[in-house]
Amino acid sequence: MKVLAVNAGSSSLKFTAFEMPEEEVLISGYFERIGMDGSFYTLKCQGEKIKKEVELKNHIKAIEYLKEELFNFNIIKDLDEIKAVGHRVVHGGEDYTKTTVITDEVIKKIEELSPLAPLHNPANLTGIKSFMEAIPNALQVAIFDTAFHQTMENDRYLYPFPYEWYEEDKVRKYGFHGTSYQYITEHMQEKLNKKDCNLIVCHIGSGGSICAIKDGKSIDTTMGFGPNAGIMMGTRCGDVDYAGIFYMMRNKGYSLDEMDNILNKKSGLFGISKGFSDSRDIEEEIAKGNKLASLANTMYQNKIVKYIAEYYVELKGDVDAIVLTAGVGENGREFRENVLNDLACLGIKIDKDKNDKIAGYLDINEGIISSDESSVKVYVVPTNEELMMAKEAFRLTK
Amino acid sequence: MKVLAVNAGSSSLKFTAFEMPEEEVLISGYFERIGMDGSFYTLKCQGEKIKKEVELKNHIKAIEYLKEELFNFNIIKDLDEIKAVGHRVVHGGEDYTKTTVITDEVIKKIEELSPLAPLHNPANLTGIKSFMEAIPNALQVAIFDTAFHQTMENDRYLYPFPYEWYEEDKVRKYGFHGTSYQYITEHMQEKLNKKDCNLIVCHIGSGGSICAIKDGKSIDTTMGFGPNAGIMMGTRCGDVDYAGIFYMMRNKGYSLDEMDNILNKKSGLFGISKGFSDSRDIEEEIAKGNKLASLANTMYQNKIVKYIAEYYVELKGDVDAIVLTAGVGENGREFRENVLNDLACLGIKIDKDKNDKIAGYLDINEGIISSDESSVKVYVVPTNEELMMAKEAFRLTK
Repeated sequence: MKVLAVNAGSSSLKFTAFEMPEEEVLISGYFERIGMDGSFYTLKCQGEKIKKEVELKNHIKAIEYLKEELFNFNIIKDLDEIKAVGHRVVHGGEDYTKTTVITDEVIKKIEELSPLAPLHNPANLTGIKSFMEAIPNALQVAIFDTAFHQTMENDRYLYPFPYEWYEEDKVRKYGFHGTSYQYITEHMQEKLNKKDCNLIVCHIGSGGSICAIKDGKSIDTTMGFGPNAGIMMGTRCGDVDYAGIFYMMRNKGYSLDEMDNILNKKSGLFGISKGFSDSRDIEEEIAKGNKLASLANTMYQNKIVKYIAEYYVELKGDVDAIVLTAGVGENGREFRENVLNDLACLGIKIDKDKNDKIAGYLDINEGIISSDESSVKVYVVPTNEELMMAKEAFRLTK
Repeated sequence: MKVLAVNAGSSSLKFTAFEMPEEEVLISGYFERIGMDGSFYTLKCQGEKIKKEVELKNHIKAIEYLKEELFNFNIIKDLDEIKAVGHRVVHGGEDYTKTTVITDEVIKKIEELSPLAPLHNPANLTGIKSFMEAIPNALQVAIFDTAFHQTMENDRYLYPFPYEWYEEDKVRKYGFHGTSYQYITEHMQEKLNKKDCNLIVCHIGSGGSICAIKDGKSIDTTMGFGPNAGIMMGTRCGDVDYAGIFYMMRNKGYSLDEMDNILNKKSGLFGISKGFSDSRDIEEEIAKGNKLASLANTMYQNKIVKYIAEYYVELKGDVDAIVLTAGVGENGREFRENVLNDLACLGIKIDKDKNDKIAGYLDINEGIISSDESSVKVYVVPTNEELMMAKEAFRLTK
């Protein structure tokens, strides 16, 4: 059975086609600059990479090319072979605790939730509506970034604001990266052969968050009401004292939008290092003796160590595994070594040889990096949000 | 030698007179509603309590009454017996790393630092100038709330904002309650007979913060650029996702000042419990079955547990003592029990009997509350910021 995993942005569309339940990737592609000048798409199929510059008036047009290419590459002979399309939807609020078949009512709800994710939910909806029109016989399902965290208790998801802010305006911690956490959790449940496993999962990419998982369920996570909370990120500040923000707004007269832009695009590693948001660039700069890059890196690692410490205690020390995933987690060997060394007092010990052998760009991209004496096993596991979406969509076809 | 410890607010003046180096309290008093209708002062001396309603046009007038009472109570026979006045100054910025004799230049600096503490520094200065006029022969010294934390490294005190915010506008973590931390640190250095002691000090009052102390020096603390960061407090939110604040500002049109007021006066325990900011009231409400009070209390304790976990790892598990102090720390027996129980996985164990015997309102107000098997000793120690100020002022007379 063919299943598509789709991530629609306001001017982009990413997709992967899977053969399910075999979990085989058939083709993947990325449409960019939809509705803008210079639009194009790239495809990857059977080792081949293709780029085509075409006019993409809207998402519907992009999906027309997508269908055409599915036929060209002999992925399908008939459109009805695509049984399901899984759509990433950023915000499911408190309404969605799991993947959901899209109906008119669901579309209405996702629209209503748009104020919570004004950049993402409307774009996700554009994707949904376009696919419903273009592939009308497929089951359309919504996979929410927030759903996995809906198992958090209120003493973890509330902020100490006036309680009415929660009751009336739904201001609370939602958490994100849920699809990635679900993927890692299911993967580890299988690997450890333990459904009720306790994990600390560190999804560390250019954006990043950490999740405490008890009995296979999220009990706490670092991202909050929005995705700029918790750990320091490539260009996002994460946790800060709001008073520093207010001080700069008063001093410089920044509007909320201007300030939001600074905190999301000009802060984090980029802000401290004065221009380097990518961990690989940061590493290069450190090698050149750039002190601010080194400072940024230390701050970045400190914050991750702090959250692992918090979650270790939150799980009462009963942690089956710490898992590192996403760009930096999968590839940052020095990063992993530094973070784990800072956790030595909890009995966590790295095996430097094992750690050095695992990276996305090496032969081995997954495995244990803790030593046999470590109090907690530490794994590197590549995340796969697209596959998770395809699995979720496939489950609902049954 | 007589030494005064003074804390001046915009419409208040608190003082304690000490005999030094004996550390004996001679008299203490509190002038309130200075410059307003209904002004009065209260005094405590030799077990006696006095309240007098008088017109207090300004701080100078209050000090006139203060001097008069010092003569009335036979504390002094000559004004020159007062050798030093120690003034609490909230913000010393990066300029002051320790207690400082006040000169014209120091006054100018404190004025320059006022934007960082607009409610406090100007009021502190009013107190300083009034005492310089009223008791001209005494040494006037400034004791800064921030000074103790100036030993933090930049990877702990910086926020992941654009670096220019630090360079040009001095936006960074300063930390507060420094006088309390210094008092506790000196007290524990003596008690443990160890100058280079490592401590986690929890100053938990209606305001509150936690400090990680390594080799007798602050290396990290929970309050930040301002005093509404870190743990949840009586009416302050502490750590939150700024995006939730921005969301409410957009939805309701609140100004920065209005929002600041909500976050400082209507949040924290008060916000979640819908009206109870005092831990004693919260306890009463919980006993009555008030679920929001119970939720507020759990959130409050959770956050403190998280920071102790962080600082335990930051100190690499090498912690000589955890110290609980200030209103809730000194008196909240159930609070202490709950917090320490949540830290059991670090090997921290409470001795329930010992804990139950120690409180400010009982015969014993200080002592160890951990069991003999505890990995870290836990102490309750009453803080004494006034005495610390007097000690600091006295040191500078020599």
